[in-house]
Amino acid sequence: MGKAATGKVGGLAGVSAGQSAICTVGTGHGLNYRGYDIYDLAEHCTFEEVAYLLLREKLPTKGELKDFVEEIKAARKLPDALKTTLKLLPKNAHPMDIMRTTCSMLGCLEPEVYDVAKMSFPNQQKIATRLLGIFPSALTYWHHYHNSGKEISTDSSQDSIGGYFLELLHQKAPKELWVKAMHASLILYAEHEFNASTFTARVITATLSDCYAAVTGAIGALRGPLHGGANEAAMELIAEYKSPEQATKGILEKLARKDKIMGFGHRVYVEKDPRNVVIKEWSRKLSVDINDKEGLFPISEAIEKVMWDEKKLFPNLDFYSASAYHFMGIPTAYFTPIFIFSRTAGWMAHVFEQRSNNKLIRPTSEYTGPDNKAFVPMDKR
Amino acid sequence: MGKAATGKVGGLAGVSAGQSAICTVGTGHGLNYRGYDIYDLAEHCTFEEVAYLLLREKLPTKGELKDFVEEIKAARKLPDALKTTLKLLPKNAHPMDIMRTTCSMLGCLEPEVYDVAKMSFPNQQKIATRLLGIFPSALTYWHHYHNSGKEISTDSSQDSIGGYFLELLHQKAPKELWVKAMHASLILYAEHEFNASTFTARVITATLSDCYAAVTGAIGALRGPLHGGANEAAMELIAEYKSPEQATKGILEKLARKDKIMGFGHRVYVEKDPRNVVIKEWSRKLSVDINDKEGLFPISEAIEKVMWDEKKLFPNLDFYSASAYHFMGIPTAYFTPIFIFSRTAGWMAHVFEQRSNNKLIRPTSEYTGPDNKAFVPMDKR
Repeated sequence: MGKAATGKVGGLAGVSAGQSAICTVGTGHGLNYRGYDIYDLAEHCTFEEVAYLLLREKLPTKGELKDFVEEIKAARKLPDALKTTLKLLPKNAHPMDIMRTTCSMLGCLEPEVYDVAKMSFPNQQKIATRLLGIFPSALTYWHHYHNSGKEISTDSSQDSIGGYFLELLHQKAPKELWVKAMHASLILYAEHEFNASTFTARVITATLSDCYAAVTGAIGALRGPLHGGANEAAMELIAEYKSPEQATKGILEKLARKDKIMGFGHRVYVEKDPRNVVIKEWSRKLSVDINDKEGLFPISEAIEKVMWDEKKLFPNLDFYSASAYHFMGIPTAYFTPIFIFSRTAGWMAHVFEQRSNNKLIRPTSEYTGPDNKAFVPMDKR
Repeated sequence: MGKAATGKVGGLAGVSAGQSAICTVGTGHGLNYRGYDIYDLAEHCTFEEVAYLLLREKLPTKGELKDFVEEIKAARKLPDALKTTLKLLPKNAHPMDIMRTTCSMLGCLEPEVYDVAKMSFPNQQKIATRLLGIFPSALTYWHHYHNSGKEISTDSSQDSIGGYFLELLHQKAPKELWVKAMHASLILYAEHEFNASTFTARVITATLSDCYAAVTGAIGALRGPLHGGANEAAMELIAEYKSPEQATKGILEKLARKDKIMGFGHRVYVEKDPRNVVIKEWSRKLSVDINDKEGLFPISEAIEKVMWDEKKLFPNLDFYSASAYHFMGIPTAYFTPIFIFSRTAGWMAHVFEQRSNNKLIRPTSEYTGPDNKAFVPMDKR
């Protein structure tokens, strides 16, 4: 059975690794969170509303949402020991490594207390809000310390995670349009079934390890360019070109050389990424708002067209996220950390679900090495 | 196919998640590393020899082993920034969280440099020896600082990882017998195919993330009591009893209450864990050596007997590792970190192998949630 399941394609493609009630890819418009269509959520909700839906399994009332937002806001503060460490971590470190270390260290400072014998995890919801609150603080604190020597305050009047991040990054209150764009972007990135980072979180959780271990591992997986790192790679690609014509020519050359082109296609989606239409529209709006002199939006559209014409490959969420973030003045190196701010909600929802019906995730492998080699003593080698 | 593959048992049990030439469970005496029988390796080799075999795919010559040991010894030094952080991490933190944070932070301080486009990873072997060298340093530095305020030196004349750990822990050169016991124990723990932590490392690696991300995630998975944490749980169990008779009675009571009993049975092995006979003999030798007044060895044997008589469950590697480590004066909380010192070799071998023939590991899930729920605006909730 094992070999049959992976023999043809590998990477567990198309193999179910368990049950889940959180997300479905392929019904309605192509992506649903807990049964709700992603287009409804992206149009009508704040990110915090969607995080609540993922973590607490229902859309919040006005009062529930207010309390939840207050919990997240109260969770923004950085412990002193973490601040000291963020100052010690080098300026040229990979921001994803900063986030991974932040999460792991927080697990030392504020460990999860739980009872395996009773399968009781009383702090897990609190840890979810703590992580949603603190990640933007850690990234921007580290950023400003190493770029200007300033030890920024994490006090802010911004209610939303996206608005808070933009305010701390730019050290001024963000435009309302940008805050709305961040809501939409974070909603689109919040959850995506058994993607590699979420699956990592579930494999870790299934040993009955703690929440921080699960999210730390997930951040490590998200860092890879075949996963979250793709939005940064997409930005680097777009930035190579000065005009749509140049982009078309350049991409054709890359395709001829068989270079990898990031931000296109998807393991699960075969015809289109339903999230693309939403983020593309936000990228367009933001390009108008900032008067896109670099022409990054038309350049992106030119790349989209040539990839479809030549390869029948469609842009995934990462592709137009790149220009959208760029238009809001976000450094490219922080695109994947933003993915963390959002996906933390999905990861933690999966941690809860895994724990609610746990079984160790432990596959086997197909052995391809030598059999029964005779041992050779040191002096005969 | 997906549902069939997991529908019956779940947790990917019996499902192959890919090919591997590193380890096989079930041929020869039941466990082979790169085709060599575990009994030959445990009897004739040092741990470093086996780590070399796993990482560099052949048994080393005398000269190769000498160079490898020197590389690991040279990799013991703790960077100042890491020392400062270890001092900031609380005394009562979980030692596995200390190790996880050490690995993640080292990834910020000494990042892996690699080229995804060329699939070139020139530093990966060096990072493997760095981790083999530094993990015992970090654990014992943190330990002594928080227990006696002493900032220990990581200079040592001990060549082996096990001897080095014991010397730093006890602050005196270990007995030769203990060094030998550590070699055997670390060899037995070094590798075990697609176990949960190794599988975590491969899922992370498959996104083309870095070595530190893979090992950090693996440490998080190993922490769980259904995985590496089992040796600590076994020690706690054994320590509950003052005599074999009391142990027999106590275990019968636990079984009647359907309590979980750690250190018995295994996902892959069905009749016995081949590693048990080796570690049990080491536990016996060490019990004689230290004149086991607590009677932990006969108590362990009594537990083994009742578990077999009542449940036909056999002790796995974790069970007699517990008493063996205890006899060498190792605090129970450090049993799972020792597992890291060893399994790092296996993890990194799997990282290399995954990279050599990479495909994103991204399964699907069987959706069990609601379909197409109508969105309810905030004021209608």
